Amino acid sequence: MKSETKCTIVKLGGNIIDDQEKTNAFLESFASVNGLKILIHGGGKIATELSNRMNIPVRMIDGRRVTDMETLKITVMVYAGWINKNIAAALTARGCTAVGISGADAGIIPATKRHSNPVDYGFVGDPAGKCNTDFIRLLLENNITPVIAPVTSDGSGQLLNTNADTIAAYIAAAISMNYKVNLIYAFEKNGVLNNDVVIGNLSKSELQKLIDSGIINGGMLPKLKGGFYALDNGVKNVAIGSALHLKEIQSGSCTYTSLKQ
Amino acid sequence: MKSETKCTIVKLGGNIIDDQEKTNAFLESFASVNGLKILIHGGGKIATELSNRMNIPVRMIDGRRVTDMETLKITVMVYAGWINKNIAAALTARGCTAVGISGADAGIIPATKRHSNPVDYGFVGDPAGKCNTDFIRLLLENNITPVIAPVTSDGSGQLLNTNADTIAAYIAAAISMNYKVNLIYAFEKNGVLNNDVVIGNLSKSELQKLIDSGIINGGMLPKLKGGFYALDNGVKNVAIGSALHLKEIQSGSCTYTSLKQ
Repeated sequence: MKSETKCTIVKLGGNIIDDQEKTNAFLESFASVNGLKILIHGGGKIATELSNRMNIPVRMIDGRRVTDMETLKITVMVYAGWINKNIAAALTARGCTAVGISGADAGIIPATKRHSNPVDYGFVGDPAGKCNTDFIRLLLENNITPVIAPVTSDGSGQLLNTNADTIAAYIAAAISMNYKVNLIYAFEKNGVLNNDVVIGNLSKSELQKLIDSGIINGGMLPKLKGGFYALDNGVKNVAIGSALHLKEIQSGSCTYTSLKQ
Repeated sequence: MKSETKCTIVKLGGNIIDDQEKTNAFLESFASVNGLKILIHGGGKIATELSNRMNIPVRMIDGRRVTDMETLKITVMVYAGWINKNIAAALTARGCTAVGISGADAGIIPATKRHSNPVDYGFVGDPAGKCNTDFIRLLLENNITPVIAPVTSDGSGQLLNTNADTIAAYIAAAISMNYKVNLIYAFEKNGVLNNDVVIGNLSKSELQKLIDSGIINGGMLPKLKGGFYALDNGVKNVAIGSALHLKEIQSGSCTYTSLKQ
């Protein structure tokens, strides 16, 4: 049953993770967010750097990583291993008891491998089925902050690389059955930009115009698609803004993009 | 308060993890172990292979890996990332809901970096302080099996590479305050060997004789040291035996080494 308890879900973008100083500043402010909270993180350039170092070719199609078995290994190692454990340990050291997990743990996010037609992305998955919100709530209700890496698995235990923006929206929507959820896409910019100016409020119809005119494209689309999915599925507020202004976004004292139905 | 509830803690050795078929057989039988259970896993050769591929020199002193920052990254990625998530997903797919974590999550294992004198092992840590058994119990009491990778962190959030045998003993001892704990070191052999014959029962005084005569050395020592520590600190039974005979060890229907006080 839905309670009046708030839950803040923050998705931290990869460009911030690539910068240790910015990551520390973000984690400092995230650790002090009041109430229930969940952190979902992306990957950044570390996976690409590791691929290069191991002479594994990086293939991107439409901005998405093609994930063969070697690349899957790298993404799981970097996202669910190095980044995830560092964030969980850093938050815990700051007094915010955190547990680093992924969508593949406890069946949190049942997923299916994306169809190989028209584009074969390899071991890439999309959420498909009921989120194990019982487990997430078990952590939250015991004052433990889940830190979630963008890895899922299918019913056979096969790990799958999954878009972190999509996961954030999926979990936010699922958990909105139980809490009043605020979803924040925190990244390196101050919001969705139109000629370097932050768009304060953005509706689906306005978005379509901006896509048609080529103003919005690429990496912003999964956030917007996810954000509107979340809004349509019970999430109260969706904000897109700077990872360095987390508190200001929460208090409404800085510029950011707010999605409107 | 100690209950009469049993908890089985299994430490899975690296040589099994290197073999996919054996790992699958082990996971199949581990998934069907009745009652509360915890799996702690080692790393195996994957970390060394990755180091070689990245041209990072592997340095071992007395069988222990010297862990500089690059090597720490590799061990965290391989142990807490690739191996840990694969095991958690595989167990969950087999109906045993599992969560992959490490000693660095939720402050499960507070650790300190090992002193650099007489040997500087780099980012290697040892458990130091109170185990967060509340979190482990929270999982167990909700029918969730913790799968624990041998990574810890110090009070500042610095990740540390930590011996998996040591972690198994530390957690077994801590959780024995609450449950009747059976600790099983499961690996590629049938037990502690003396001239290829499994030693059925082994006491501390007999161990010392076997060490003095050179019959026991190397990788067996952390298991035995950990095993006797566990026995001295509340653990009911400690067995050392084949990862492929988990059920037989539990029912006493195969040969293995049982530690005696």
